[in-house]
Amino acid sequence: MASIFTKIINGEIPCYKIAEDDNFFAFLDINPNAKGHTLCIPKKEVDKIMDLDEETYMGLMAFSRKVGLAIEAAIDCNRVGMSVIGLEVPHVHVHLIPLTEMKDATFQNKVTLDKEQFEATAAAIRAQL
Amino acid sequence: MASIFTKIINGEIPCYKIAEDDNFFAFLDINPNAKGHTLCIPKKEVDKIMDLDEETYMGLMAFSRKVGLAIEAAIDCNRVGMSVIGLEVPHVHVHLIPLTEMKDATFQNKVTLDKEQFEATAAAIRAQL
Repeated sequence: MASIFTKIINGEIPCYKIAEDDNFFAFLDINPNAKGHTLCIPKKEVDKIMDLDEETYMGLMAFSRKVGLAIEAAIDCNRVGMSVIGLEVPHVHVHLIPLTEMKDATFQNKVTLDKEQFEATAAAIRAQL
Repeated sequence: MASIFTKIINGEIPCYKIAEDDNFFAFLDINPNAKGHTLCIPKKEVDKIMDLDEETYMGLMAFSRKVGLAIEAAIDCNRVGMSVIGLEVPHVHVHLIPLTEMKDATFQNKVTLDKEQFEATAAAIRAQL
């Protein structure tokens, strides 16, 4: 069965899209640790980061750097952090998180944004790409 | 002033070393989230991951993949996760963390190992490289 992320790539589930190329896709996390929290994923559906072939892994990291630089330019924060966990959705995803304090990185505190705020955040990041 | 990680690279502060090449260095986190928790760093002292030049960033990610595969082979876990935060030590470091449950990724729960356990863990990971 397609992962929830594959359904997002295919447009079956809506998202606030940030970027896409032939192999990778980026969109806002709908349950963000902080405003601008973005997920970067390979279109290839693989569960674990260390199981990605080297080319896809390196491509995902290059893609995540481009998106991360755009987030850092668009969002007020100390820096953009990265996290790959993957215990919930079995489709590799790189969290890019605007960090101001440690709690932004722990997945314990969440922020609530409405549709307009998500759209404005996505547009601000896309404008830096 | 040299960061604590530069002092580790230079041997001024001891560590449980995992790997080293011309540009990168890996060693066990002394305050691990889980057994096998390893830090991968560039020898170049840069504070923020997104400020690394592209070549160093991509080199660090390739180095982290090699070390991560060795950790996954050596340590009993569901998968190896990655995290770059950096709010404490101003020298880029990729956390590679053997994950079994979400708490292993949140930096809230720590495990205590003695010197012998650190040495045995480092040796087991090095044997997979």
